Amino acid sequence: MANPPSVQLLLFDIFGTVVDWHGSIAAEMARLHPEVDGDAFALAWREGYRPAMARVMAGELGWTRIDELHRLILDDILPRFGLGGLDEASRRELNRVWHRLDPWPDSVAGLTRLKKRFTLATLSNGNIGLLTNMAKRAGLPWDCVLSAEVFRAYKPDPATYLGAAAVFDLPPEQVMLVAAHHDDLAGARACGLRTAYIERPLEFGAGHPKDVSPEPANDLHARDLLQLADLLGA
Amino acid sequence: MANPPSVQLLLFDIFGTVVDWHGSIAAEMARLHPEVDGDAFALAWREGYRPAMARVMAGELGWTRIDELHRLILDDILPRFGLGGLDEASRRELNRVWHRLDPWPDSVAGLTRLKKRFTLATLSNGNIGLLTNMAKRAGLPWDCVLSAEVFRAYKPDPATYLGAAAVFDLPPEQVMLVAAHHDDLAGARACGLRTAYIERPLEFGAGHPKDVSPEPANDLHARDLLQLADLLGA
Repeated sequence: MANPPSVQLLLFDIFGTVVDWHGSIAAEMARLHPEVDGDAFALAWREGYRPAMARVMAGELGWTRIDELHRLILDDILPRFGLGGLDEASRRELNRVWHRLDPWPDSVAGLTRLKKRFTLATLSNGNIGLLTNMAKRAGLPWDCVLSAEVFRAYKPDPATYLGAAAVFDLPPEQVMLVAAHHDDLAGARACGLRTAYIERPLEFGAGHPKDVSPEPANDLHARDLLQLADLLGA
Repeated sequence: MANPPSVQLLLFDIFGTVVDWHGSIAAEMARLHPEVDGDAFALAWREGYRPAMARVMAGELGWTRIDELHRLILDDILPRFGLGGLDEASRRELNRVWHRLDPWPDSVAGLTRLKKRFTLATLSNGNIGLLTNMAKRAGLPWDCVLSAEVFRAYKPDPATYLGAAAVFDLPPEQVMLVAAHHDDLAGARACGLRTAYIERPLEFGAGHPKDVSPEPANDLHARDLLQLADLLGA
């Protein structure tokens, strides 16, 4: 299935798939706190992400946006990196780095091509404001910003994938999730969506190359968003 | 207050403010059913809109999107216009006319200018899919599509205005609602938002000119979105 003719809506995972969170955070740390190991700092911050969302989905925390979860994790890791004395304004500013992540070099060009043929929406655990600020700064041409915040559930909860299809009155098989993470794609597939895997071997930094072997259950496998546009004839 | 320096986010009412619902529906009727009075048909359809939303907000109907409310009203008025025999596919297609409304002639150019200086979001009672399809067809350059559907409340419920400000972590006074309807603007003002009135004297068609007298309580009063851009220095 090179180009399922019925697909009308492409949903994009964001962190790692469209933007380079590791490189952006490491670069911000090199600028603000060159004494800190930016690679380790970025990984530690991101490591707290899944456990924090799990606490929300388990009901241990009420509904909490990623901005707030990022801040909880940040406060937790700062002392480990010798930054326990950072003041409130600096913490708030640093936490906003997630609104300022840089896109991968192919992202804007790939999305611009895909947008001519498909409706493009984010489907990220990031909150709406974060995704909108990021898109405006980076020039990501979304038709619509969808987020866990709209559905009050985090991926891979089925409410997110099915909720996005329902917003557009589309059956799941006319919707494709584009992501660099197999667990996200598996969640979408279980709901009947099509799936496209994007490699992003350097998502965790040059020192931690990722296994990007194809998973045959995905409909498409692409190096980047330009190759995805090729595969989808856009 | 010509340009409140603190305003960062502009929220736009859509039906009547950015797009010409009356003219678009009358044109569609002239094409599909030239025997029907398109002016009266458009007005009748729109007349059912507020009562339908009121039924939802009163709890008489569960949460219902505008696409579904438009369809309920359509089914109700078709017999009055001699179209009671319209089949299901034709009703569904006609109901989608709300996704295909044409912008006023100044809308795209005005929004394009405003977008350079502000974050632009819809804040409409229309549902997300409707607003996204409309924007893609008409070239409306939103940074973010916000809708009653996100907040599960219809304007002028405070949950919509305050919800939009909260999405962007902004105090209400840094948010401005742009609308052609004084009741919508009054709702926003009661929540602490800034307000800009747009005239749109022909919203109800050339045969029913609207009183567009200034309401002094609004921060700004503009003929159209290009003049709004002038007033906001964009």
